[in-house]
Amino acid sequence: MDKAQIKNILTHVQSGQMSVKQALDKLKSLPFDDLGFAKIDTHRSLRKGFPEVIYCAGKTLEQITEIVKRIPGKQLLLATRAGPEVFQAVKKVRADAVYHELPRVIIAGKVKVPKLLTIAVASAGTSDIPVAEEAALTAEVLGNRVKRLYDVGVAGVHRLFAHKDILLKANVVIVVAGMDGALASIVGGLVSRPVIAVPTSVGYGAHFNGVAPLLTMLNSCAPGVAVVNIDNGFGAGYMAGLVNQNNEKEDDE
Amino acid sequence: MDKAQIKNILTHVQSGQMSVKQALDKLKSLPFDDLGFAKIDTHRSLRKGFPEVIYCAGKTLEQITEIVKRIPGKQLLLATRAGPEVFQAVKKVRADAVYHELPRVIIAGKVKVPKLLTIAVASAGTSDIPVAEEAALTAEVLGNRVKRLYDVGVAGVHRLFAHKDILLKANVVIVVAGMDGALASIVGGLVSRPVIAVPTSVGYGAHFNGVAPLLTMLNSCAPGVAVVNIDNGFGAGYMAGLVNQNNEKEDDE
Amino acid sequence: MDKAQIKNILTHVQSGQMSVKQALDKLKSLPFDDLGFAKIDTHRSLRKGFPEVIYCAGKTLEQITEIVKRIPGKQLLLATRAGPEVFQAVKKVRADAVYHELPRVIIAGKVKVPKLLTIAVASAGTSDIPVAEEAALTAEVLGNRVKRLYDVGVAGVHRLFAHKDILLKANVVIVVAGMDGALASIVGGLVSRPVIAVPTSVGYGAHFNGVAPLLTMLNSCAPGVAVVNIDNGFGAGYMAGLVNQNNEKEDDE
Amino acid sequence: MDKAQIKNILTHVQSGQMSVKQALDKLKSLPFDDLGFAKIDTHRSLRKGFPEVIYCAGKTLEQITEIVKRIPGKQLLLATRAGPEVFQAVKKVRADAVYHELPRVIIAGKVKVPKLLTIAVASAGTSDIPVAEEAALTAEVLGNRVKRLYDVGVAGVHRLFAHKDILLKANVVIVVAGMDGALASIVGGLVSRPVIAVPTSVGYGAHFNGVAPLLTMLNSCAPGVAVVNIDNGFGAGYMAGLVNQNNEKEDDE
Amino acid sequence: MDKAQIKNILTHVQSGQMSVKQALDKLKSLPFDDLGFAKIDTHRSLRKGFPEVIYCAGKTLEQITEIVKRIPGKQLLLATRAGPEVFQAVKKVRADAVYHELPRVIIAGKVKVPKLLTIAVASAGTSDIPVAEEAALTAEVLGNRVKRLYDVGVAGVHRLFAHKDILLKANVVIVVAGMDGALASIVGGLVSRPVIAVPTSVGYGAHFNGVAPLLTMLNSCAPGVAVVNIDNGFGAGYMAGLVNQNNEKEDDE
Amino acid sequence: MDKAQIKNILTHVQSGQMSVKQALDKLKSLPFDDLGFAKIDTHRSLRKGFPEVIYCAGKTLEQITEIVKRIPGKQLLLATRAGPEVFQAVKKVRADAVYHELPRVIIAGKVKVPKLLTIAVASAGTSDIPVAEEAALTAEVLGNRVKRLYDVGVAGVHRLFAHKDILLKANVVIVVAGMDGALASIVGGLVSRPVIAVPTSVGYGAHFNGVAPLLTMLNSCAPGVAVVNIDNGFGAGYMAGLVNQNNEKEDDE
Amino acid sequence: MDKAQIKNILTHVQSGQMSVKQALDKLKSLPFDDLGFAKIDTHRSLRKGFPEVIYCAGKTLEQITEIVKRIPGKQLLLATRAGPEVFQAVKKVRADAVYHELPRVIIAGKVKVPKLLTIAVASAGTSDIPVAEEAALTAEVLGNRVKRLYDVGVAGVHRLFAHKDILLKANVVIVVAGMDGALASIVGGLVSRPVIAVPTSVGYGAHFNGVAPLLTMLNSCAPGVAVVNIDNGFGAGYMAGLVNQNNEKEDDE
Amino acid sequence: MDKAQIKNILTHVQSGQMSVKQALDKLKSLPFDDLGFAKIDTHRSLRKGFPEVIYCAGKTLEQITEIVKRIPGKQLLLATRAGPEVFQAVKKVRADAVYHELPRVIIAGKVKVPKLLTIAVASAGTSDIPVAEEAALTAEVLGNRVKRLYDVGVAGVHRLFAHKDILLKANVVIVVAGMDGALASIVGGLVSRPVIAVPTSVGYGAHFNGVAPLLTMLNSCAPGVAVVNIDNGFGAGYMAGLVNQNNEKEDDE
Repeated sequence: MDKAQIKNILTHVQSGQMSVKQALDKLKSLPFDDLGFAKIDTHRSLRKGFPEVIYCAGKTLEQITEIVKRIPGKQLLLATRAGPEVFQAVKKVRADAVYHELPRVIIAGKVKVPKLLTIAVASAGTSDIPVAEEAALTAEVLGNRVKRLYDVGVAGVHRLFAHKDILLKANVVIVVAGMDGALASIVGGLVSRPVIAVPTSVGYGAHFNGVAPLLTMLNSCAPGVAVVNIDNGFGAGYMAGLVNQNNEKEDDE
Repeated sequence: MDKAQIKNILTHVQSGQMSVKQALDKLKSLPFDDLGFAKIDTHRSLRKGFPEVIYCAGKTLEQITEIVKRIPGKQLLLATRAGPEVFQAVKKVRADAVYHELPRVIIAGKVKVPKLLTIAVASAGTSDIPVAEEAALTAEVLGNRVKRLYDVGVAGVHRLFAHKDILLKANVVIVVAGMDGALASIVGGLVSRPVIAVPTSVGYGAHFNGVAPLLTMLNSCAPGVAVVNIDNGFGAGYMAGLVNQNNEKEDDE
Repeated sequence: MDKAQIKNILTHVQSGQMSVKQALDKLKSLPFDDLGFAKIDTHRSLRKGFPEVIYCAGKTLEQITEIVKRIPGKQLLLATRAGPEVFQAVKKVRADAVYHELPRVIIAGKVKVPKLLTIAVASAGTSDIPVAEEAALTAEVLGNRVKRLYDVGVAGVHRLFAHKDILLKANVVIVVAGMDGALASIVGGLVSRPVIAVPTSVGYGAHFNGVAPLLTMLNSCAPGVAVVNIDNGFGAGYMAGLVNQNNEKEDDE
Repeated sequence: MDKAQIKNILTHVQSGQMSVKQALDKLKSLPFDDLGFAKIDTHRSLRKGFPEVIYCAGKTLEQITEIVKRIPGKQLLLATRAGPEVFQAVKKVRADAVYHELPRVIIAGKVKVPKLLTIAVASAGTSDIPVAEEAALTAEVLGNRVKRLYDVGVAGVHRLFAHKDILLKANVVIVVAGMDGALASIVGGLVSRPVIAVPTSVGYGAHFNGVAPLLTMLNSCAPGVAVVNIDNGFGAGYMAGLVNQNNEKEDDE
Repeated sequence: MDKAQIKNILTHVQSGQMSVKQALDKLKSLPFDDLGFAKIDTHRSLRKGFPEVIYCAGKTLEQITEIVKRIPGKQLLLATRAGPEVFQAVKKVRADAVYHELPRVIIAGKVKVPKLLTIAVASAGTSDIPVAEEAALTAEVLGNRVKRLYDVGVAGVHRLFAHKDILLKANVVIVVAGMDGALASIVGGLVSRPVIAVPTSVGYGAHFNGVAPLLTMLNSCAPGVAVVNIDNGFGAGYMAGLVNQNNEKEDDE
Repeated sequence: MDKAQIKNILTHVQSGQMSVKQALDKLKSLPFDDLGFAKIDTHRSLRKGFPEVIYCAGKTLEQITEIVKRIPGKQLLLATRAGPEVFQAVKKVRADAVYHELPRVIIAGKVKVPKLLTIAVASAGTSDIPVAEEAALTAEVLGNRVKRLYDVGVAGVHRLFAHKDILLKANVVIVVAGMDGALASIVGGLVSRPVIAVPTSVGYGAHFNGVAPLLTMLNSCAPGVAVVNIDNGFGAGYMAGLVNQNNEKEDDE
Repeated sequence: MDKAQIKNILTHVQSGQMSVKQALDKLKSLPFDDLGFAKIDTHRSLRKGFPEVIYCAGKTLEQITEIVKRIPGKQLLLATRAGPEVFQAVKKVRADAVYHELPRVIIAGKVKVPKLLTIAVASAGTSDIPVAEEAALTAEVLGNRVKRLYDVGVAGVHRLFAHKDILLKANVVIVVAGMDGALASIVGGLVSRPVIAVPTSVGYGAHFNGVAPLLTMLNSCAPGVAVVNIDNGFGAGYMAGLVNQNNEKEDDE
Repeated sequence: MDKAQIKNILTHVQSGQMSVKQALDKLKSLPFDDLGFAKIDTHRSLRKGFPEVIYCAGKTLEQITEIVKRIPGKQLLLATRAGPEVFQAVKKVRADAVYHELPRVIIAGKVKVPKLLTIAVASAGTSDIPVAEEAALTAEVLGNRVKRLYDVGVAGVHRLFAHKDILLKANVVIVVAGMDGALASIVGGLVSRPVIAVPTSVGYGAHFNGVAPLLTMLNSCAPGVAVVNIDNGFGAGYMAGLVNQNNEKEDDE
């Protein structure tokens, strides 16, 4: 029930076509989403041009294809944690679906890149690339320019410094690191823009599937670092996209 | 050693006042921060008008006052985790220091509020206010407009919804919550701007001094939520300030 | 040995048919369950019409079918954590067995639904449905009316609110949620009846296979929420059934 | 804004005293709690005769007395985790306040005991009594008859069995236990009514301040056991009160 | 109610002095401990000559002295975790009470040492002595000969080996160790009798208040090692006493 | 080098056949095991008639058969954690090997049962049987009479009590329990002999693969309970065997 | 850009072939690794004769062979955590590659053994050998003499002592142990040289995949013990190699 | 009993002054440390000139002064974790004792600095200095030259790089860091000598009293890093001293 419907009710009351009691009954069952929380539905299908996101882990192929079918024709679609078998199933429903194997991401529809500032995605090791790519693709699908800086871990800090320009020019930096997760602190100490840190499950032993870099990042001695869940490349890309968004807004004005 | 100094060396080489070997020796000891990492020093004293920050926990009174003395006259100063005895000591060195008792924060110097969009700080319970205030004061010191929404926890979700306008209009939202930390997910589901979540150590038993809300927030089913360390109000305020900053930049253009 | 038997012994002593020593020997071996703990056996086969429950995980097919065979003809039977191969084996012994694939539950026998108040089962995400169904089926087998509210997670809180009537009318609410587990707190804040919260292992990273929502639920800032083990849909359905039961009792009077 | 107010608006629209647009504006800002979530406010001040609850830990004396002052004259008041200094402060505002030292609970106002079935509170050791009393007093303040069974731990199981009648007759049983927490499983195996289990922080070493009994209780091999947070006597009493409540309702009809 | 009482009832029924119904009523309330579980009460007051044990932590002075008062005149009494103030209070009730300061143990009554084999108590460091003494005193109070081997930690393994005779001749060995807890494995590898291992909270950092030696001991690569709770000197002494006991029994026959 | 050899050296020195320096050199290289630690080797092949034990997990088939080959002809052999493929390999080397499928235990050689008191093995659930059998078989191989009490968990405590005689007559009781592990406390409260508790990994969710019952057992409120590692049936059987052994010794005298 | 290049720039400035501005621009982009941090690149390809190391876990076959191809002809190559399929792939690119199956290590190129002191590698159990071999091979590839002492665990401490000479003569000792990890403390107490301790994931139950020996080792009561990650044989071998290296240096002078 | 004594016995046997039996008896009680494990006693009083070390935490003043009294006259003495009251007590026994307040270290006796290479001690934050000083003083007392680099944390990495010469010239580097512990990885990536990493308990929230930097350091992506216990400055200084020692040895040859 939207504004129009409420207005309609009120108009009917005004005109006498509806009694006060009838109106009261109708308004009583007024669903919450009608009250103007414009965004409420946006966590799924965001503003025009924004993608519909499907987190595939734990969903059956049937559930996933059902969701895809319900998405209007050419709308942008981002499916994460999608194995090859998911892609095969989605492909049948959305012929324009493209599969990114390493990050296990499916994208369908056409991405428009607006005039946004850059988001840099830095990752520590070769094994962190799948998560980094999930972040990068998510940010791109949300309409951001993305610069990738892979394999720039702390053990060879000169590789990171060799590309300092990319970091310093970015409006947001996503840092993806397993092992000791120290890259987030180094980058946080270098740049003056928000750093979104993603611990990964890459490591072994006292790494505890990502707990080690998670704690490192939460305890970063550099301010300006906030953290998302272990391996949550999507979350980092989404968060970075939100941060980067208001530049666009300003540009438009 | 800055650009000027390097230029000076080169000029002396050019003019023959300095041998190549002498120049090489001088350049060899070239400190890293001279190489153009403009920001490198900014983690302490940020750009003009930005505060010097002192994290007081674990520092002796002598160490704190020594640091305060080294800060130029009227520069903005933010001291966190500062007990009353710290304030007494700082007050002697900086007469303009003001103490915020609940969040145990000292501020000295004059804050200029630029034309930034609002940062909303929402906290769940009465006991979360000290951390929320640390976040709010930090954001204010960094030059942001801050709106406070305290005691709007999930158990009485109508209190939160009663103030939805503040949340929906904010450019960044900081959510401070102990107990179950569920407020972050609710707010993350309502707004379409970045949410910085701060778990607090408010709780008992299986709360494990903040681990419960920390995990809740890291696992938020609403995207657009990033997390800082338990009780890290400063970190959240700082992060929110960075995010909010680029609007200002855009405004200036 | 029940009251009748003890009385019998005493009568025989009284009549001289049994010596004091003989009686003493008989009473000495008096098994505990004869002392009037009527319920003691009921944890397995509850009161008339109540199901025999088999937890299949960790049991061999032989053990399970052996147990099923010992259950009288048409008695209600609920088998949880039962894979398809378990169903195949049970089917041979109980031809009336029906398999519920998602929650991996087998039900045999006929359920009578008495005039009980409703139990609502709300679940947060699509992946939580198997656990939610285990809870719902358990409650139904115990003779309750169950209303299902699936996919009403906190990230889109309006979906939950759209069905508030179901929640508000229920006599007990079961909340099933993985990820951040925040749904339990929201529901606990809305209803004035007992909420049984079931954390699920749906999630990843710092979710720790259900620890995150478990802690969220144990720390719920809404009172009236009690928690069962991770993924323990059966336990929640059983608990809710016990709570709902006394209405029936009252109805009977 | 309640029904009366909405009705008022509609009547004014009907009568022409208010335009549709004016009505729409008024309804737009309609706070959520006006929509019929009758219970929403009840988490604080429940239905008539129900207490206002203050969790004192982490609140200043000023905050607590401020809350107490806002509670209408003779309304029932329950303050938990209240040190003697809290009682001194509350006493000044509510002269009828009574202090329970062991459970650190303050009660003010007069409790009416309706015709409810009994709630039994069983505790394992002497040191668990404070938490057990918090549960018992909470249940009493909510209008329940409470039977206490203290010091009936598993190490001397005969003491428990000696009082089996109390357990078997109760409509709900609260089990409070530290150390190994095994009492919950034993009681859960004996009774056929819901058991609310409260782990306590009583113990040492590998007890981890209550984690040991918490896990024991969550893994109870007896169904019909649900768990609240460590030391959460209030939560258990509240939950038990909700469960016990519907008998009252039935009695009334 | 013991055998004699039951016999008495039966005799009265036989003689006609008591009706069957009267007997039934009496037997109905038959407390569990009368049924022949000879030991049931023994966890408190063990067989003749065995001590009454009071765990003082978490009990008020009033509760402790109340318990002491209920213990018959000269019966052996062991109170553990007893601060000096507890001793002062107990002293007033039991004039023969003796205080052991380091292990915070009170003993009252006279210990008889029967012809039992020796229990050896080995401890790793100076700081483990309080727990070791709690174990040694407990074993002594239970009537065992105890040999103490203190400060024989693994870092100087020769000190341990210098006293190997004591270990090899003991019937049971109690090993008390904090830090790395490695002593239990060494001793377990040397002796062919049961080893009761007690981890202590002596240590810091990644010791986690005794978790480190607890895990070491649970994972001992030497078989014949069983573990009690962290700092549970009493439990180890008690267990060792039980193990040592059957030799006495054999001696008697 | 044994006493005889040292004596030999000394005799040669005495007789002048060996110089002091030569003797000193010989004594200097004196291996430790020659010094009379008779038992040192016994952790593997214990006293005559005792089994050689092989823990198969983590060993290759080659390593295992190599070890088996080195064991003298008919010596008793116990191999634990042995899959069927291990049995196939061992069978080829030791034709008298017998496989116990559930506990995955191989036994070869003939067990002599001496006149020892009984060891009772009580287990809580059907799924705990494999671990219980590992304990029972180990105890039997070590020459003990074993009584099995399976499926006597706390949820139906009457089943346990129905067999109380077995427990009360045993010289040692092994309690094997997963889930809540509460059985150890109950049994510990019933018997007056040592209880060896074995937590099992049977359970799910907040069971954490055996951590829940491990903590329960370490915190047992009944004294006389010591704990071995999760699923360590062998360790419990071995420990119980050591405890039971000294009766035999006494019998012999 | 190395010293030579900087010198070149300066010479050109001196000679007037390059303006100061041009030189400044060139120096401005000076990559960090040119500044004399000679070692910076050495974490990968160390000094002449040192191996290139590839950690294979989490890398695709393509990534690994790509890295191998980039390594100059005959340079020493060490690949760890390499399954047989990795070896097949590497073999095609480097014909001189040799596979060590148990530690899953590939070595290619020729190792020169300089006149270094010995590194001893002691391991506790048969199942620890793979990690011990990874350490030993790493140390050998780095040019060290290695002595292996396998299966010398604490349960049979005489086996360790029988080889004390090897330990006492070594310049560094690597201790590899799972289970209780106690071997590190024993060895640390025996030798007067640095001990590098490697906990392994060999164990079960409360071993937590290596956490138990990790904590044991971190809490070693013997000083002179430092720890690397669980199963990190490579790290231990590398660290030991670094420690042993300066003897070589001294030898050379 | 040392070589001289054994020689003495043998000489007496040779000369006939002692019978073989008498000699055998004397040798039988031969303490282990006489057998040539030269180092065995050295963990306490190392080679000539090395300090006696007392870890004061958990020891009573009486125990500490007793130990100090037993140390010969002017021998070097290092007491760690010593509060001011410990110093007062030690001062009375050893007049030459000097107190270092921040690291709570007492040193008595005169330190000789041999011709060893340098040990660098780098610490991240001001609050890490006490632990860093414990490490530095320990290394100095062991006869090493120590260079201190304090407050060079990762957030301002230029401060570290400004002093790179000290790091690159050191023979061993000790890194002391709380918070995120990232400094160890950075330094490990810069130097080519062993790095001993000390996590500190400096931090809050998800720092868990040092667990965060402990995990960071154990997972360091730079090889050549080994870790000691949280806050174990002594252990790091001792380990570094052992590593540095063999240069001295080489120098002597």
